[in-house]
Amino acid sequence: MQIVILAAGQGKRMRSVLPKVLQPLSDRPLLGHVLRTAASLTPSHTCVVYGHGGEAVRAAFPDEAVGWALQAEQLGTGHAVMQALPLLNREEPVLILYGDVPLLRADTLRKLADAAGGDKLAILTVQLDDPTGYGRIVRDGAGHIVRIVEQKDASEAERAIREVNTGIMVVPGGKLAGWLDQLSNDNAQREYYLTDVVAAAVRDGVPVVSTQPARVSETLGVNDKAQLAELERIHQRENADRLLAEGVTLRDPARVDVRGELVCGRDVEIDVGCIFEGRVELGDGVKVGAHSVLRNVTVAAGTRIAPFCHFEDAEVGADCQLGPYARLRPGAKLAEDVHIGNFVEVKNSTIAAHSKANHLAYVGDATVGSRVNIGAGTICCNYDGANKFRTVIEDDVFIGSDTQLVAPVTVGRGATLGAGTTLTQDAPAGQLTISRVRQTTIESWTRPVKQKK
Amino acid sequence: MQIVILAAGQGKRMRSVLPKVLQPLSDRPLLGHVLRTAASLTPSHTCVVYGHGGEAVRAAFPDEAVGWALQAEQLGTGHAVMQALPLLNREEPVLILYGDVPLLRADTLRKLADAAGGDKLAILTVQLDDPTGYGRIVRDGAGHIVRIVEQKDASEAERAIREVNTGIMVVPGGKLAGWLDQLSNDNAQREYYLTDVVAAAVRDGVPVVSTQPARVSETLGVNDKAQLAELERIHQRENADRLLAEGVTLRDPARVDVRGELVCGRDVEIDVGCIFEGRVELGDGVKVGAHSVLRNVTVAAGTRIAPFCHFEDAEVGADCQLGPYARLRPGAKLAEDVHIGNFVEVKNSTIAAHSKANHLAYVGDATVGSRVNIGAGTICCNYDGANKFRTVIEDDVFIGSDTQLVAPVTVGRGATLGAGTTLTQDAPAGQLTISRVRQTTIESWTRPVKQKK
Amino acid sequence: MQIVILAAGQGKRMRSVLPKVLQPLSDRPLLGHVLRTAASLTPSHTCVVYGHGGEAVRAAFPDEAVGWALQAEQLGTGHAVMQALPLLNREEPVLILYGDVPLLRADTLRKLADAAGGDKLAILTVQLDDPTGYGRIVRDGAGHIVRIVEQKDASEAERAIREVNTGIMVVPGGKLAGWLDQLSNDNAQREYYLTDVVAAAVRDGVPVVSTQPARVSETLGVNDKAQLAELERIHQRENADRLLAEGVTLRDPARVDVRGELVCGRDVEIDVGCIFEGRVELGDGVKVGAHSVLRNVTVAAGTRIAPFCHFEDAEVGADCQLGPYARLRPGAKLAEDVHIGNFVEVKNSTIAAHSKANHLAYVGDATVGSRVNIGAGTICCNYDGANKFRTVIEDDVFIGSDTQLVAPVTVGRGATLGAGTTLTQDAPAGQLTISRVRQTTIESWTRPVKQKK
Repeated sequence: MQIVILAAGQGKRMRSVLPKVLQPLSDRPLLGHVLRTAASLTPSHTCVVYGHGGEAVRAAFPDEAVGWALQAEQLGTGHAVMQALPLLNREEPVLILYGDVPLLRADTLRKLADAAGGDKLAILTVQLDDPTGYGRIVRDGAGHIVRIVEQKDASEAERAIREVNTGIMVVPGGKLAGWLDQLSNDNAQREYYLTDVVAAAVRDGVPVVSTQPARVSETLGVNDKAQLAELERIHQRENADRLLAEGVTLRDPARVDVRGELVCGRDVEIDVGCIFEGRVELGDGVKVGAHSVLRNVTVAAGTRIAPFCHFEDAEVGADCQLGPYARLRPGAKLAEDVHIGNFVEVKNSTIAAHSKANHLAYVGDATVGSRVNIGAGTICCNYDGANKFRTVIEDDVFIGSDTQLVAPVTVGRGATLGAGTTLTQDAPAGQLTISRVRQTTIESWTRPVKQKK
Repeated sequence: MQIVILAAGQGKRMRSVLPKVLQPLSDRPLLGHVLRTAASLTPSHTCVVYGHGGEAVRAAFPDEAVGWALQAEQLGTGHAVMQALPLLNREEPVLILYGDVPLLRADTLRKLADAAGGDKLAILTVQLDDPTGYGRIVRDGAGHIVRIVEQKDASEAERAIREVNTGIMVVPGGKLAGWLDQLSNDNAQREYYLTDVVAAAVRDGVPVVSTQPARVSETLGVNDKAQLAELERIHQRENADRLLAEGVTLRDPARVDVRGELVCGRDVEIDVGCIFEGRVELGDGVKVGAHSVLRNVTVAAGTRIAPFCHFEDAEVGADCQLGPYARLRPGAKLAEDVHIGNFVEVKNSTIAAHSKANHLAYVGDATVGSRVNIGAGTICCNYDGANKFRTVIEDDVFIGSDTQLVAPVTVGRGATLGAGTTLTQDAPAGQLTISRVRQTTIESWTRPVKQKK
Repeated sequence: MQIVILAAGQGKRMRSVLPKVLQPLSDRPLLGHVLRTAASLTPSHTCVVYGHGGEAVRAAFPDEAVGWALQAEQLGTGHAVMQALPLLNREEPVLILYGDVPLLRADTLRKLADAAGGDKLAILTVQLDDPTGYGRIVRDGAGHIVRIVEQKDASEAERAIREVNTGIMVVPGGKLAGWLDQLSNDNAQREYYLTDVVAAAVRDGVPVVSTQPARVSETLGVNDKAQLAELERIHQRENADRLLAEGVTLRDPARVDVRGELVCGRDVEIDVGCIFEGRVELGDGVKVGAHSVLRNVTVAAGTRIAPFCHFEDAEVGADCQLGPYARLRPGAKLAEDVHIGNFVEVKNSTIAAHSKANHLAYVGDATVGSRVNIGAGTICCNYDGANKFRTVIEDDVFIGSDTQLVAPVTVGRGATLGAGTTLTQDAPAGQLTISRVRQTTIESWTRPVKQKK
């Protein structure tokens, strides 16, 4: 099978500088969804017809092994497919998809291709409660498709037909060029309509068959932001349903967003308002607290994430306790049973097992050992304005509150730093290091009073 | 046109100390919505009939150029309009609105007034799937309205009528007083019903015409908190639909709240759970991360706001990177390309271009120059318990972590402050200033052990 | 009345290690909901038939005054009830409930028991739009129930019946054993079906009566995570409706979760995305900002909670201002008019009236007096790595920013601590105490430059 994806539309109603097929659905361009589905069908090759947005569309998919055909003028869907002809062979059937119809499933398309066989024209149709505006599928007494009649040309009886054309079809490779050749633009829009190949097939005595998708939503196209939002929600509801079927507990299936791939172990619980981006893996028994945002994160079994956490490009070990308000930035790697508490930021740092940073701290560019206690207000001073340096905190260290670790610096195994220490040189293992001034009471001092203005 | 707004209802079912018409929908009192719609019709004058809540209702709208008529006793809608008569003239038609019907659109009312002409009685009606409980619109064979029949008085055939009265009407100015005079309270509630003017008009041979609103929801009234919540959601969905139509990308139209005015440029993206209060302007390409709350904020083009941000009365320049967990309090003014990171609070401060406060800091009452780096844990000590003072940080300054800037104080251009500095006097330009004690290791020290209890 | 609860199902489709009846709905096991409803009926005794999950199920309810009957093999609902027989008496009617049907209301069951009288068989039935798959209630011409016909055995006419059996019934105590005895497992599943007692009752001439619940959702069972999520949302919508009826203002009834008991005063407002767990009390006029999470918290009248707050096991006085991003941990007790601002954590501490900790602080194991100002960045160093100690801050104290209070330590009444102080000994009342080094400027110093890599 060969695949042609029509992706030349401008999408004016999107009111965006971005070409329509690059509008993101669930963090992936619309066309990206279609390309992914196309690839899963392992076609001999795929050709994308692009136009509006031109190079931006191609540039958005630098690694896709597809052919690109430019439709310089938008003269209709039939004209669009014509641009792909030089890239197609006559031996294989051609599946025609649309870059702005992102939710089609591979299974639906396989069924359609199977129906086509290789010598038939197969069109994907759906039953609509309100078919107004769509091309109706007209069948003869034996149930064979004889033509598609557009809304404006339909008789009263034809308008009552609820089965409509989706535009998605599989065309015999040997017939496509000839049928396109017969298309006329003798219509109000002066456009060549791909739909008219159905009439051509009937004329040629080629059987026209149809299949239907599992869900009508698979065939929905996107022309404006309202439709984009509608499809986003359909897609997210499907994600939620898949998670539920896998045994994930969702507090509210309408309030979870999976914008990428979420892989869950057994007995995972996800509270309301959570967002998963990129690839996220949650191990057995992981609980994700409300309103948390995780992007490209791995979380091992038994870890509990309190509300309002924000993790990005991080690895979390088993049985950790994180948050609320914990932030893991890129390169944060936590071993098992690590505690990261409220208002703590961890960046580009490894923290070994059983260590804790429970409050108000910045752990950046640090290597932290096991059983370390990082006091509230601790800051890794990793940046001197020009360069970044690492802080090393060895096992069993106790860092007093409000301590600054001026990197590069090492705190030896079992060392203790007093509260408020500014550590500029290595602290020896096993001992207490401080930088402290004796407190003084200024007896003659009087409190400031409110100044008059 | 003249407008009378009936706003005397108590709203017992609200179970609130606040009079019903002061209950907020989308941060504005119900009556405020009606007053705004009324004002947009530029009537010659508007009269509000108030009663329950008395002065509180008047006091809530100190600047409205409306007349106030007190309905001391609640004797029905007809009686309420009677209280307004002294404030009305006989020359202009009178539009009657309700202080607890907040979603009516000006277009709907213009259409109604147009239908009234000036000599006809025009009533706003709607078609309901379930008209139970409402007054049905009875028409003669020619389709003319002949009367309104209440539920309890309706025949079987009349109960099947799905067109019902909304109570909203335009009455010829010269007729109103006379018709009200004819009202009787000979009914179960002992009330004077405004609805009965329809019968009076028919009796007088004045044509009764009707129009319908674009949406039934425009005519919904609020009697309890469930209805208030329902209208809040309808109103928010309408806000979302308007944003989508303007080209804004909403991840979930059901999870955005606009409680005021949100003005968006091109290609704005708003993630789930965001709330906009007061007047918010978002420039081209601004992205607002999930669960963020913005109130009276201007954000220039290209700025990216990460999740969990909270901004109030602030101005943000172009291409800034803010959050997650960034808080801008009143008077925060950021120039372009400013970075405000997690757990950072900015209050009453200007921050010039390319400056950064990436972690755990309080920037209050400060004037910060360009290309300044404010280290983690930095605190502007702006308050001495009685007075507030400003901190000035000139261009290209580097503030080390955990530094306290005891205002009033100035850090000269290009100066560097060492980590942990308590700055009580101005720091000279271009040089390193610190307040530091050499670190000491206490060799004889032993760690505390767990005390027995 | 006696109650039998069938709770032996495994719930394979849950895909969980937890037995089905222990799956939580709104933070309470499914069986816990049923037990609570059962207890509210004050039966003479309740018997739970358990099987899958065995001891785990019993162990989850250590304090329930119920009898436990083990169903070692799962041989059908009739077989399950047989296991309970030794615990039942013949004098009282037996109400049969299901451990996976959590939303049934006591009122519904009382009505059912009333219908049973004591000598009739009463079954709970519902009308379904689509009854496919359920046992239909077949009645004779006089409207008496004559049998329940299962889907596969139903005639065309019987399949059109929309009234179906829920399985919930009240059986005369003297009849139960005999009817169970007559059950046969001569069916496809080789199971003993409780449903068949209806036929037995008809055979014995015992009248079979029925009642219906107020809502069909009361009778929904849980077999997979999708159904669990569906019931969670139904339950939460009911919670929201109850709050609205009580006069609480909810910005979005679909975005509030009450997982326990929420008691509200007059004029309480709850913004979107809030979660209440355990027992939460909100006094008159309390406002809870968006996306806040409160667990076991009491909040007195007039307090305003800004967005993103997280409170657990805390008491909050009247007229406090909290958040955004305030965290109260267990043992936090705030008196009236206390301000806790952004990125402040309070744990196991009392804070007296009119005191403030507005930014970036950790108040742990502290006793704070009235009118105290705790500066930004203040840390109570309550933990020495082995033991925790208390900090005492007396009335009218001013704590400068970035101060560390090394507990045990007391700050005397009216004392002031300078910014950046490390307080290791008590600070005398009424005076200024500091630990400060004079700032120095290093004139020869040059800024680091970017190193080559």
